[in-house]
Amino acid sequence: MKIMVINGPSLNMLGIRETEIYGSGSYAELVDYIESSAKQLGVEAVCLQSNHEGQIIDWIQQAYFEGFGGIVINPGAYTHTSIAIADALRAVRPLPAVEVHISDTDRREDYRRISFTAPCCAAQIKGMGFEGYKIAMEKLLDI
Amino acid sequence: MKIMVINGPSLNMLGIRETEIYGSGSYAELVDYIESSAKQLGVEAVCLQSNHEGQIIDWIQQAYFEGFGGIVINPGAYTHTSIAIADALRAVRPLPAVEVHISDTDRREDYRRISFTAPCCAAQIKGMGFEGYKIAMEKLLDI
Amino acid sequence: MKIMVINGPSLNMLGIRETEIYGSGSYAELVDYIESSAKQLGVEAVCLQSNHEGQIIDWIQQAYFEGFGGIVINPGAYTHTSIAIADALRAVRPLPAVEVHISDTDRREDYRRISFTAPCCAAQIKGMGFEGYKIAMEKLLDI
Amino acid sequence: MKIMVINGPSLNMLGIRETEIYGSGSYAELVDYIESSAKQLGVEAVCLQSNHEGQIIDWIQQAYFEGFGGIVINPGAYTHTSIAIADALRAVRPLPAVEVHISDTDRREDYRRISFTAPCCAAQIKGMGFEGYKIAMEKLLDI
Amino acid sequence: MKIMVINGPSLNMLGIRETEIYGSGSYAELVDYIESSAKQLGVEAVCLQSNHEGQIIDWIQQAYFEGFGGIVINPGAYTHTSIAIADALRAVRPLPAVEVHISDTDRREDYRRISFTAPCCAAQIKGMGFEGYKIAMEKLLDI
Amino acid sequence: MKIMVINGPSLNMLGIRETEIYGSGSYAELVDYIESSAKQLGVEAVCLQSNHEGQIIDWIQQAYFEGFGGIVINPGAYTHTSIAIADALRAVRPLPAVEVHISDTDRREDYRRISFTAPCCAAQIKGMGFEGYKIAMEKLLDI
Amino acid sequence: MKIMVINGPSLNMLGIRETEIYGSGSYAELVDYIESSAKQLGVEAVCLQSNHEGQIIDWIQQAYFEGFGGIVINPGAYTHTSIAIADALRAVRPLPAVEVHISDTDRREDYRRISFTAPCCAAQIKGMGFEGYKIAMEKLLDI
Amino acid sequence: MKIMVINGPSLNMLGIRETEIYGSGSYAELVDYIESSAKQLGVEAVCLQSNHEGQIIDWIQQAYFEGFGGIVINPGAYTHTSIAIADALRAVRPLPAVEVHISDTDRREDYRRISFTAPCCAAQIKGMGFEGYKIAMEKLLDI
Amino acid sequence: MKIMVINGPSLNMLGIRETEIYGSGSYAELVDYIESSAKQLGVEAVCLQSNHEGQIIDWIQQAYFEGFGGIVINPGAYTHTSIAIADALRAVRPLPAVEVHISDTDRREDYRRISFTAPCCAAQIKGMGFEGYKIAMEKLLDI
Amino acid sequence: MKIMVINGPSLNMLGIRETEIYGSGSYAELVDYIESSAKQLGVEAVCLQSNHEGQIIDWIQQAYFEGFGGIVINPGAYTHTSIAIADALRAVRPLPAVEVHISDTDRREDYRRISFTAPCCAAQIKGMGFEGYKIAMEKLLDI
Amino acid sequence: MKIMVINGPSLNMLGIRETEIYGSGSYAELVDYIESSAKQLGVEAVCLQSNHEGQIIDWIQQAYFEGFGGIVINPGAYTHTSIAIADALRAVRPLPAVEVHISDTDRREDYRRISFTAPCCAAQIKGMGFEGYKIAMEKLLDI
Amino acid sequence: MKIMVINGPSLNMLGIRETEIYGSGSYAELVDYIESSAKQLGVEAVCLQSNHEGQIIDWIQQAYFEGFGGIVINPGAYTHTSIAIADALRAVRPLPAVEVHISDTDRREDYRRISFTAPCCAAQIKGMGFEGYKIAMEKLLDI
Repeated sequence: MKIMVINGPSLNMLGIRETEIYGSGSYAELVDYIESSAKQLGVEAVCLQSNHEGQIIDWIQQAYFEGFGGIVINPGAYTHTSIAIADALRAVRPLPAVEVHISDTDRREDYRRISFTAPCCAAQIKGMGFEGYKIAMEKLLDI
Repeated sequence: MKIMVINGPSLNMLGIRETEIYGSGSYAELVDYIESSAKQLGVEAVCLQSNHEGQIIDWIQQAYFEGFGGIVINPGAYTHTSIAIADALRAVRPLPAVEVHISDTDRREDYRRISFTAPCCAAQIKGMGFEGYKIAMEKLLDI
Repeated sequence: MKIMVINGPSLNMLGIRETEIYGSGSYAELVDYIESSAKQLGVEAVCLQSNHEGQIIDWIQQAYFEGFGGIVINPGAYTHTSIAIADALRAVRPLPAVEVHISDTDRREDYRRISFTAPCCAAQIKGMGFEGYKIAMEKLLDI
Repeated sequence: MKIMVINGPSLNMLGIRETEIYGSGSYAELVDYIESSAKQLGVEAVCLQSNHEGQIIDWIQQAYFEGFGGIVINPGAYTHTSIAIADALRAVRPLPAVEVHISDTDRREDYRRISFTAPCCAAQIKGMGFEGYKIAMEKLLDI
Repeated sequence: MKIMVINGPSLNMLGIRETEIYGSGSYAELVDYIESSAKQLGVEAVCLQSNHEGQIIDWIQQAYFEGFGGIVINPGAYTHTSIAIADALRAVRPLPAVEVHISDTDRREDYRRISFTAPCCAAQIKGMGFEGYKIAMEKLLDI
Repeated sequence: MKIMVINGPSLNMLGIRETEIYGSGSYAELVDYIESSAKQLGVEAVCLQSNHEGQIIDWIQQAYFEGFGGIVINPGAYTHTSIAIADALRAVRPLPAVEVHISDTDRREDYRRISFTAPCCAAQIKGMGFEGYKIAMEKLLDI
Repeated sequence: MKIMVINGPSLNMLGIRETEIYGSGSYAELVDYIESSAKQLGVEAVCLQSNHEGQIIDWIQQAYFEGFGGIVINPGAYTHTSIAIADALRAVRPLPAVEVHISDTDRREDYRRISFTAPCCAAQIKGMGFEGYKIAMEKLLDI
Repeated sequence: MKIMVINGPSLNMLGIRETEIYGSGSYAELVDYIESSAKQLGVEAVCLQSNHEGQIIDWIQQAYFEGFGGIVINPGAYTHTSIAIADALRAVRPLPAVEVHISDTDRREDYRRISFTAPCCAAQIKGMGFEGYKIAMEKLLDI
Repeated sequence: MKIMVINGPSLNMLGIRETEIYGSGSYAELVDYIESSAKQLGVEAVCLQSNHEGQIIDWIQQAYFEGFGGIVINPGAYTHTSIAIADALRAVRPLPAVEVHISDTDRREDYRRISFTAPCCAAQIKGMGFEGYKIAMEKLLDI
Repeated sequence: MKIMVINGPSLNMLGIRETEIYGSGSYAELVDYIESSAKQLGVEAVCLQSNHEGQIIDWIQQAYFEGFGGIVINPGAYTHTSIAIADALRAVRPLPAVEVHISDTDRREDYRRISFTAPCCAAQIKGMGFEGYKIAMEKLLDI
Repeated sequence: MKIMVINGPSLNMLGIRETEIYGSGSYAELVDYIESSAKQLGVEAVCLQSNHEGQIIDWIQQAYFEGFGGIVINPGAYTHTSIAIADALRAVRPLPAVEVHISDTDRREDYRRISFTAPCCAAQIKGMGFEGYKIAMEKLLDI
Repeated sequence: MKIMVINGPSLNMLGIRETEIYGSGSYAELVDYIESSAKQLGVEAVCLQSNHEGQIIDWIQQAYFEGFGGIVINPGAYTHTSIAIADALRAVRPLPAVEVHISDTDRREDYRRISFTAPCCAAQIKGMGFEGYKIAMEKLLDI
């Protein structure tokens, strides 16, 4: 079983970007963490990152056509603005998805309190740091 | 006369995607329908699809520079969020555009009730299925 | 098969009323257009116009009781204020209806952007001029 | 010159209806006042009252077709809800209209603070009692 | 003592209209139920139905002038949009009114949660089916 | 058959509390009225009152576990703020509930116009005084 | 009897300021018009103009202490923002006031549709040009 | 180390309550799951449930005074209405808390999309079923 | 004369809770301060604290029945959410109440700017620290 | 130590202005009360009143430059509209200010519930009548 | 050519006022900077500052009557509340104006994000410190 | 020192696009202007344009990694919708950015009045035409 792990805009800046919010771990370290966690769970994780809303939608469709077993998605800022990503997740049903946020977005601007994508996901994990991605993969295995 | 037909995010998933809303016809069938309808009307239809907001804007500009006679656009989810596509349509005036939606978006979430692009189009057709594209091309011929 | 075509308030003023928005064709010409288009399609169109919200509801019910095959409705200003007409369309289900607007109402005041009746119709056509009525009748034939 | 004076819903109840707001003068007395004021001004006033939104629109159109010189309108509660009456006033332009309210509606519920019809009228007079109708007729003579 | 029972738009469609919401009893059966309940209570019920907002206002005024003892009103969709009917009820004070809804409107669209007429009525009964009309008449007898 | 009658905050202050709104009958008199009405209907009414949101939820659950046939609830001020009571009513479905208000809350502050609990009840009765409780019990018997 | 006529900010720019909205008459001509109209009515008009919210409040208080019989006020832009002027008018009750606007402010920005001062005035006249001031003085004489 | 696990209103109805949303596991099974998970993690879990907002606040304070190492809280419906519980969590800082929801609340009514308590918690887990409680305890161990 | 002093949720955490906002004085010190201030004023202060909304309502009623002369209330977070406590204060009129807040709540989240209870109190004191309670008792003595 | 006491618009009308809200004491009596209270506290109070927003800002700056120890301010209607006065209070920090209102503004129009100035003041006292000014001066002495 | 440079409320407090936002330069230094910059550009700058909304309007009119070539305006807090200043700028058209803010107001409270005056100015410069005034003068020279 | 100048969607259409708003200068002329202005200032300007939100974010990150000294950004329509670009600017702090708009966006639709990116920029310049880019570069040099 393969799981697609999609990280949205500026998540490749982890370790550089506002470290008081996102922590000091780099994106490379996140990828390592995800891949080794996946191995422990007996699955393969394909880690992708893009700043492009359209690219993220392309990957969601690709996950469907290439037989992935589920999607772990951290849509970053697109969480709060992208109906298109939400629609893409709906379009590939019954392929399951889980939403992850490294920090707890509820503590920040009001416009970060609404997630368009969450209603299209089976679960949402916020504030668990890197571990959130592992939990999300476990959830996909459960389904 | 050439008409550019732009389909937005996840419209290439037709026939797979929420078929109770969008019907069972595939995107390939839609392209066939549009191209043969165009022939009947004596025009050439160039069918394009992208999940990328920026790509759609690029194409709108290309339509202007390459002498297309009009644009038929189904912006999908970008209908409700993209001021940039709306501005692009305004930027290529007097090139006319017509907005098409396969389903009737008014029956769904509240955030689907507002269209940023409609005020930049000469007409809007919702809920006519594939036929909406043909009607849109006829409208462009009228203008 | 008979189709009832209902035009709402001030649509009998076509050709007189704000011609820069609604065009120069008169209401009589609209009726002619609809009736001849209907003949082409092999159906009978009964054209009605009223400024009275209640009359429009009466006609919707009459369409149901007298065996009409469908309703084409341009509710005019009642589009944006009448829950009662919307309820009437719901009350006569499964009789199908299609909503038509001669101009594209999205270019005008904000309060014209919401349609109470659209969610009760199978399709909505805006900005196609008189032709919108013909398209609506074709849609009813499809259903 | 003929002026059409249209009174909306429940204005025929003057003298009975909430007299602490609308005063003790009856509708018959209002008609007398308007007709004699009109004579003083050298015009003919045709006084009409209806509880029907559609009837009011019919009369506005009739004023246009029968060569009235202007409309004095007190739309009553329809002031705050009827886009259709506002559209009717727009549809008969350049026939001028003046809006009158016997009481000052700003002192009451919030939903009475917005007038759909005022932007379609040359002037608006509130709180002047019966005299507001005379002032409105003078305004029409000025135009 | 006579009680006027006014039913608003599309209530004559009972038994036909969305029966999963309004039940299977027809309007004729409702009239029978109201008239026989009235007899039991020793009063006369005059049952009226109209799709016309203006007609409903006319009847409210008529109730006042013809010496009715009270009004039972189910304004249907006008509940949520008609300031004019609310004003009419205020205009005939101290004639008492009671508002009835067959179904519980709170379970439906948000715009059905606000009643303009309720603040002008002595009581409001929702979701009691036909029996709501009987309860309303009892309330009028109490007053 | 046993019916649980729950009165919310400050309803034990009836006869003392704002008597121009709630009337002069005391809470003890209300209990008497409910119990004797219940006897007439051949059921047993268990009358409970609490100022505690949590206690009301406890009782709703108790009604479910102890085999009550239905709940009559006047949630008082919690009507407008308690999602938790609404959820409790949903949690004990199919046990039916009816909402009662002694006065007509629509005539008061705006924040009293929304009821969280009404969508979880089979019917809602407002402004019928003590009698509202009897009507509510009759409704439960119907179900 | 003396009437104080207060004109608010930029009304001294009449004849210069946006003449397509306010007309070509100058402030000096307005003062002449008001003073001669006052003479016709047998009263004395004291015309004042200020761009200062505080000065306008000072004058309202002065009107009270110096025995003026009433106030005609065109608060200009302060109409829509000044609770302080509204409070000043309330503070000098029972001294009556009438609000005047030369143009019909309803045709302009949304924020011009609300008047804080209107609920503190006996009447409001909009769109009557200079004549509005005369009508206002007549209204004060009536009171 | 001891962890307090607080479940809010109606969570004791698990297995009975809307099982299509909350699943078929009972509250007793949830407690078993939490206690055995805690043992695996080498901590002691004290499971508490209350329908009382005040009781939940009492327990949060008790956790602070009795030396608990952290709080896992599923505030149920109080998530969306209780500033008091949020303040209680703030009041016991630096004692950490994690918020858990069994189902994904984003798929339900709009008023369930806002959490007052989330900004006072280190993490939030939604839609993970019973497992969410285990993840929350792991998070507390990390802190 | 006895005065009931009610402190709401988490006020027993004073000295522990967010001391940068609430100061370092403990709840025990607050009680001492209130009791000695009361003695100075020649009255008896009964200090109560609860995290339970319902308990606070119970005490308000008890104040009425046991002949207290007034209530000093710091409703804490319930200030902004509890219509039920506001109603309880209204229910015990003419027993006077004064609202106290130790800190100035206007400097914090927007949702703390609205007080449901303030309109039911004779005065409101914010940001005066412990002294606010003494001032409140003086106010009650004045009344 | 000198304290500047600033009273805003129409507070010089005390004793004349809406006495059912503001009481019968005159502004002169208020000044006397403040000055004698100040003496009792061993400070000098300089009482100022203006209807001019700008004058109030001038005085706040003067307080800073002339070495006043604090400001007591009742901004009257400017409380709810003046960002400029709020900014002026912020600009003279660390000079402390306390906001006073004679009546409890929460019982009046909704637009009186928001105070722009309160977040710039150390404390806020409402509904304590003249005594509020004395309490405010005591607060300044504490700081 | 003369340019009028108007600074609004509390800008004379520069160097004293919240220096972390506005910087340490004093108002006198700002005047020096503006005057010497003007000389460099070959124009005369007349620097004015007032806390009075009305005074600012007086100056705008004076600029018009005394033949100034343009206005540089930093309306301070009046930016967000003064329709009257905006109207004054409109009233002196075609005299051009440019709006300047020393700091970037978008980073502060939400109510600072809207500018009433910006739509009446040819350009708006924010966050450029003192230099913004020079740029504004250059812009006026361009026009 | 190198400065990255990023132009957003449809800015490559300058000179073609709505010239009454954006002026007649072409994008090529803008690039020339920026490059020669940069030379004058002794810096190198790298001009980039894209219609893709993601591409703009990629470039912002590239500016960080390739040692640019600052960013001048005209995000076009993305100004009003892109939280992702705003986050990208935050992610590359302390790299400074300045926002530029050729026209004054405040004069257009309401949805153009809010900028997500402005709070992440050191300054914002609107309505200065091409010159705004030069000013922005000067600002970056200052920092």
